[in-house]
Amino acid sequence: MTVASTNSPVAELLIELRRDGVVPLHRQIEAAIRDGIRAGRLSRGSALPPTRAIAAALGVSRGVVVEAYQQLVAEGYLTSRTGGYTQVAMGALAAAAPAPAVVRKPRIDFGYGRADVTHFPRAAWLRSIRTVLTDAPSERFGYLSGHGMPELREALAEYLNRVRGTSARPENVVICNGYAQGSALLIQVLAAAGARRLGVEDPSAGDDARPVAEGLGLEVVGVPVDADGIEVPALERSGVDAVILTPSHQWPTGGVLSAEARVAVLRWAARTGALVIEDDYDAEFRYDRTPVGAMQGLVPDVVAYAGSASKTLAPGLRIGWLVVPAHLSDAVAAAKVAADRGSPAIDQLAFADFVRRGEFDRHLRRMRPLYRRRRDALLAALSRRLPDFEPAGRAAGQHLVAWLPPDLSEASVVAAAAARDVGVYGVSPYRLSSRGRDGLIFGYASLSERTIAEGIDVLAEVVAALRR
Amino acid sequence: MTVASTNSPVAELLIELRRDGVVPLHRQIEAAIRDGIRAGRLSRGSALPPTRAIAAALGVSRGVVVEAYQQLVAEGYLTSRTGGYTQVAMGALAAAAPAPAVVRKPRIDFGYGRADVTHFPRAAWLRSIRTVLTDAPSERFGYLSGHGMPELREALAEYLNRVRGTSARPENVVICNGYAQGSALLIQVLAAAGARRLGVEDPSAGDDARPVAEGLGLEVVGVPVDADGIEVPALERSGVDAVILTPSHQWPTGGVLSAEARVAVLRWAARTGALVIEDDYDAEFRYDRTPVGAMQGLVPDVVAYAGSASKTLAPGLRIGWLVVPAHLSDAVAAAKVAADRGSPAIDQLAFADFVRRGEFDRHLRRMRPLYRRRRDALLAALSRRLPDFEPAGRAAGQHLVAWLPPDLSEASVVAAAAARDVGVYGVSPYRLSSRGRDGLIFGYASLSERTIAEGIDVLAEVVAALRR
Repeated sequence: MTVASTNSPVAELLIELRRDGVVPLHRQIEAAIRDGIRAGRLSRGSALPPTRAIAAALGVSRGVVVEAYQQLVAEGYLTSRTGGYTQVAMGALAAAAPAPAVVRKPRIDFGYGRADVTHFPRAAWLRSIRTVLTDAPSERFGYLSGHGMPELREALAEYLNRVRGTSARPENVVICNGYAQGSALLIQVLAAAGARRLGVEDPSAGDDARPVAEGLGLEVVGVPVDADGIEVPALERSGVDAVILTPSHQWPTGGVLSAEARVAVLRWAARTGALVIEDDYDAEFRYDRTPVGAMQGLVPDVVAYAGSASKTLAPGLRIGWLVVPAHLSDAVAAAKVAADRGSPAIDQLAFADFVRRGEFDRHLRRMRPLYRRRRDALLAALSRRLPDFEPAGRAAGQHLVAWLPPDLSEASVVAAAAARDVGVYGVSPYRLSSRGRDGLIFGYASLSERTIAEGIDVLAEVVAALRR
Repeated sequence: MTVASTNSPVAELLIELRRDGVVPLHRQIEAAIRDGIRAGRLSRGSALPPTRAIAAALGVSRGVVVEAYQQLVAEGYLTSRTGGYTQVAMGALAAAAPAPAVVRKPRIDFGYGRADVTHFPRAAWLRSIRTVLTDAPSERFGYLSGHGMPELREALAEYLNRVRGTSARPENVVICNGYAQGSALLIQVLAAAGARRLGVEDPSAGDDARPVAEGLGLEVVGVPVDADGIEVPALERSGVDAVILTPSHQWPTGGVLSAEARVAVLRWAARTGALVIEDDYDAEFRYDRTPVGAMQGLVPDVVAYAGSASKTLAPGLRIGWLVVPAHLSDAVAAAKVAADRGSPAIDQLAFADFVRRGEFDRHLRRMRPLYRRRRDALLAALSRRLPDFEPAGRAAGQHLVAWLPPDLSEASVVAAAAARDVGVYGVSPYRLSSRGRDGLIFGYASLSERTIAEGIDVLAEVVAALRR
C-alpha cells in the first residue's frame, strides 16, 4: 500500500493504493478523489494538483492519473479549465451524491441475505407468466389498485393462513415490492397518524426501517433482545408507538420469542394502542422443530405482518406483502399508490398462479433439505475447526450466529478473514446501544457444502494466526 | 336522491342515497358512515343510531343497514357493544385512513392516462420473458443495483438517443417503477441537496410530484403556461431550484415549447444551478408534425429526463426510466435502493430484450395510426356537434383540450355529462393559481371511434340542454 507523503499537496487527497491487482489503480484514484469531494475535504472550485505531481507522489504512471481525472470530468465532479489545470466542479448538487456501495465480493462470502437463486424455478415461473399473458383480461394491465391484484391477495391470504397461521383476509393484504418498501409504507402511515417513537430490536437489521423512520422525524428506540428474542419488560418501558419484531427467528441472534412473551407483547400493544410490525423474513425454513405460527394470527388487530419472496424465491422478483389491521388497510394502500402506483401487474398475477398451483410449496419443499444440509455442513465445520465458537439461532432460516470466545474480537477476525478473501460479518454493526458478546453472522444459503467447509478452514487458520 | 331529514339524529350521518342501481344501497351507507368517521364528523366512541331508525329515515329495509354496519365492524371502523348498540371504534389509527378513491367509471370515459391495453403485445412480451428465463445468468435474480439492469440501461440509452434525441449514457440511466416513483426519487435527492422551491407548470398534473415535494418541505410554485408552454420570464422570476416541464406536449394544454424558449430555459438552469425535470410522458405519439427532440439532448448536465412504458405499452408494467446528470446518478440510484431495493429483475431484462429486438418500435408503429384515427374521430365529432368548442394540443399524445365558449362553465358541463354517464374533466382542477379559460380534457386513446362519436353526441345534447 502506498500512501502519499503527508507533506505534499497530494496528501489531502488521501489516496491509498492497493497494488494487489484487484481494483485498477486509476479506479482507486478516482474513488479517493470522488470521496474527497463528497466528504467536503476537496471544496468546490478548488484546484487539484497536476497529474504529474500525483503520479510522482504515488509512484504510478501519469496516464493512470489522467484516466482518473477524465472519468471524474465526465461524471461532473471535476472541470478541466483552460490553462491546463483541473478543479472541483462548482455544481451545486455534486455534494448530494452518497458514496457508492462497495461492490467487490470476497471469494467465499458468508454474507447474509442471499437465497440460492441458481435454484430459481425458471420453468414453473415461465408457465405462470404464460398463463397470465394468455388468460388475464386486458384491464388487468391498466392502472392498478394500491392494495394489489385481488387474485394474489386471495392466494396469499390462503397460503399464509395455512402455512404461517396468520388470520389474513384478502382485503387486508397489500402487495409491495419487498420488505423494505412494505416497512416504509407502514412507517409512513404511522407517522401520518402521529406516531413519534418506533421500537426496533437491538441488535437488528437497521437498513430498512431506521433511515425511513428518522427521515420522517420518528425517534428510533432500540429494545434489547436476549437469547429468546425481545425483552418484554424493556419494551413495556420503551414508550414506543410501534415496534418491529422478528419473533420467529430474531435477526441476527436467532432467538424464538416464547408463547408467554408473545402474549405479553400483544397485551402491551392492545393496552397502549401500539402496532406490532412482524417481520416474518425467513419463516419458511425450519429444520429442527415444528414451525412457530405468526403472531399476527393471535391478534390481527394490533399486528402488521410482513413477508416477501426474496428469501424463498429470489430477491430480484421484488415481491412482498403486508397483512395489516383492517383499519389501516386503505391508508397503507394509499401510501403504496403515492409511492409508485402499485406493483407490476403481470408479476403479481404470475405469483398468484404460482402459489395457487402449489408451485410455491413445491419449491420450498425442494429448498428446505438443501439449506438444511448447508447449515449442517457449517455446524460440522465450526465444531471441527473452531470448537470454542458458540453457534446460536441454528434451528431456522438461512444464517446463524457464532458467539466468539473472550480472547477474540469481532473486528480483528473480520479484518483478518477479509485479508484472506473470506467474508464474515460481525454482530456489533447491528447494535444500537446494547452491549453484548462479540459474534459473527454466517449466511450459508448460497454456499455449497464444500465452499462452507473451505471457508471455515481458512477462518480457523486466521483465528490460529491471531492467537499466535 | 333521498336525504335523511335534517331534524333526525340520522341526519348527521349525511347519507345521500342514489337509487339508480349502480352502487348497492348498503355500499352507499357504508361509504357515508366511513367518510363521516374519517372526516371526524362521527367521533370515536360515539353511538350510532339503531339500524331501524336509519332504515326508516332512508326508506330502505333494515337488512340493508345491518349489512353496512357489519361490513364496517369487520373493517374496524365500528364496534358492536353488548346491549345491541353500535359505536364508532376507539382505534387510535382509524383517523389515518384517507378516503378511498372513487372507483366507479362512467360508461363513456374521456379520462386521461389510459393507454389501450387491449393491444398489449402479449406474445412478444412472453417471448422476451422466455428469453430471459432461458438465458439470464442466475445472479441476475439476486439483489439488484439501484441504477437498474445494465442490459436495460444500454437498450434504453440507445433507443432514447435514436428516437428522442437525448444524450443518454447507460451509467446515467436509473430504472424505476414508472414516472411517479421517478419524479419522487429526483425530488428526494433535490431536497437532500438543499433545494427549497420546486416549480411546476400551471396548470399541470399535480398528483405525482406535488404531494411528495410538499411532504419533504419544499414550496411548490406554479409557473403559468401560455399556448406554447411555460412562460420563460415567469420561470426566470420564480426563484425555483428545479422545475418540472412537459416541453414536448404540455399537460394538459398541449403547447409545444419553442426552440428559443428551450434555449432560454436551459440558459436559466445553467446560470442558476437549477435542475430541469423533463417529463416526456407521451412523446412517442406525434401525428401532424415531426417530433421535437428532448431538451435533455441539448444540455444533459442540467436536465433530468423522465419517461415510462405506461403510455406506450401498459401502466401495469410499472416500468419507467430517468436519464440524470452524471453528478446525480449515484444519488438517485441510492434513493431507489432506499425506496424498494430496485425494480423487478425479470421485467427489466424482458423489456431490454423487447427494445433490442425492435418489438418496442414495432408496437409503437402499430399504435400510432390507431390513436391518430381516434384523435381524428374526436376532432371530427367536436367540429360537427360542438363547433364552438376550441380544440388545442391536438398534434400529439393521447389527449387534447377543448376550450369552452364563454357561455359555458366547466363545472356545469362536467356535472351534466356525468349525470348522463359520460366522463369529461375540467382543466381548472389542475390549476394552482393561474386563471384562464374554462376547458375540458379529452383522453381518447382507449376509446373506439364509435364510442368517441357517441360520447360527443351525448355531450352535445348535454350542452344544448344547459343552453336552454
